[in-house]
Amino acid sequence: MIAAEKGAYFDEARSAEIVIDRNADCPDARLAEIVAVVVRHLHAAVKEIDPTQEEWLQAIAFLTRTGHMCNDWRQEFILLSDVLGVSMLVDAIANRKPSGATQSTVLGPFHVADAPLLPNGADICLDGKGEPLLVRGRVTDPDGRPIAGARLDVWQANDEGFYDVQQKGIQPDFNLRGVFETDAEGRYWFRAAKPKFYPIPDDGPVGQLLRRLGRHPYRPAHLHFIVTAEDREALTTHIFVPDDPYIGSDPVFGVKESLIADFVLRDDPARAADLSLRNPFWEVEYDFVLAPARAAAG
Amino acid sequence: MIAAEKGAYFDEARSAEIVIDRNADCPDARLAEIVAVVVRHLHAAVKEIDPTQEEWLQAIAFLTRTGHMCNDWRQEFILLSDVLGVSMLVDAIANRKPSGATQSTVLGPFHVADAPLLPNGADICLDGKGEPLLVRGRVTDPDGRPIAGARLDVWQANDEGFYDVQQKGIQPDFNLRGVFETDAEGRYWFRAAKPKFYPIPDDGPVGQLLRRLGRHPYRPAHLHFIVTAEDREALTTHIFVPDDPYIGSDPVFGVKESLIADFVLRDDPARAADLSLRNPFWEVEYDFVLAPARAAAG
Repeated sequence: MIAAEKGAYFDEARSAEIVIDRNADCPDARLAEIVAVVVRHLHAAVKEIDPTQEEWLQAIAFLTRTGHMCNDWRQEFILLSDVLGVSMLVDAIANRKPSGATQSTVLGPFHVADAPLLPNGADICLDGKGEPLLVRGRVTDPDGRPIAGARLDVWQANDEGFYDVQQKGIQPDFNLRGVFETDAEGRYWFRAAKPKFYPIPDDGPVGQLLRRLGRHPYRPAHLHFIVTAEDREALTTHIFVPDDPYIGSDPVFGVKESLIADFVLRDDPARAADLSLRNPFWEVEYDFVLAPARAAAG
Repeated sequence: MIAAEKGAYFDEARSAEIVIDRNADCPDARLAEIVAVVVRHLHAAVKEIDPTQEEWLQAIAFLTRTGHMCNDWRQEFILLSDVLGVSMLVDAIANRKPSGATQSTVLGPFHVADAPLLPNGADICLDGKGEPLLVRGRVTDPDGRPIAGARLDVWQANDEGFYDVQQKGIQPDFNLRGVFETDAEGRYWFRAAKPKFYPIPDDGPVGQLLRRLGRHPYRPAHLHFIVTAEDREALTTHIFVPDDPYIGSDPVFGVKESLIADFVLRDDPARAADLSLRNPFWEVEYDFVLAPARAAAG
């Protein structure tokens, strides 16, 4: 028996292969494939790192603290995935866009499903804080044809760097959130506040890791969008403020060059009055290009 | 600013490199090195797996459940490391033995620091269960010279597959545990019970994973040893029972061929009486070879 099963015993050189062989009876081919890739890379990483037993225990303790930090309103493993660039990589892989379509970025933890549908021109800034902002643009297909009736679900942090859901009872409900629908020419417009940078939650093990890596926790200022339309692939993305001090060092790697919009400061009292905005105000024009819906999986 | 920091924005092809560059200011060179290896393999694994967003969320949820399962007496991340072969790989890397020295294997979670020092010949089986076993052998250096005064800290599960610490109040305290010291000829001997296979804790996410992979949770029967002596490298290892049904499929990959001992059934009423063992009894003879202590790190 020993000789026959010799291949089953641990051997440093063949370590990954031995573990993968053990999963040969897995009835779920996709799971077996995923675990095989994970085992191969995990073993290769351990061999490169050449850890001491104490370093391995520190890694175990880090994962344990990360797990213990997770609860219904805090997902520290997603945060870990974010700061290691894995969330953006998965987003890139799972949401490939055809050439010409607006690129996606991470959803983030602060979307809510039931933001109010508002008429174009509405002001989502309910706390009156921050510099006034006009956001406008079009939703089109890759050939530039307007898409009427497209929906834009928008949300952003307030002037102090917090989302309404982080400050329930302090900010008005649905502050800086709303859903807008494009008109017959594919246009949308609404009033908001110029967003500011804010830190990712950094009071847990992921924040500690960032500090030990010499990194800061500040996400550059952005507005979130989910743009949907009939027969179009849904788009989850941000638009970023270009003059943010952290634009080149987003801790979650969410910035793509094509998502950096042009924010222009307007000093135009007459137009401000027309728009019911304080003068001066910021204006950003950004067009979203939606890819055709993918064929349903066969 | 945008152009100058262009390299900082996310790019699928260069994703790992971008994350690693971000850690350039890390003041801890070893941490930076470890994180760079982890990021490179994590990104390569994600690219190979080509996950859906849903699969990524399932991975996040699995890690979260694993973290939530950990408490003061249960370490589910170590268990995960075990069943993926990582613990044995780290053991192999961190405890390289010179040729001729007895090989190491995993410590496991059931060692206690304060087992009693017993005279050679003592019976550590305090619950009277199982088949009687005589364990004996020598501790030597790689040239076969006996080491007197070496200590062997031994522990094993009882005939029902539980360690005393898993059944406090049910098993006698320190059942199947003891520390022995070699005599002038390097010999040790004690009485015990023939060990049986037992399951790793399989009521958590790691147990679920094993089942989904088509694997069983049963560790083949073994005795644990930590063998120490002056000027010698400490050895943490097991000896395994060769006729165990799971000898070729240890879920934690702890078996090495050189650690499979020879367990012989003796039918010898006179010798049994001399040894105060019931007849027939099992006998295993196993010699431990200790490497010289490594020079202190410089």
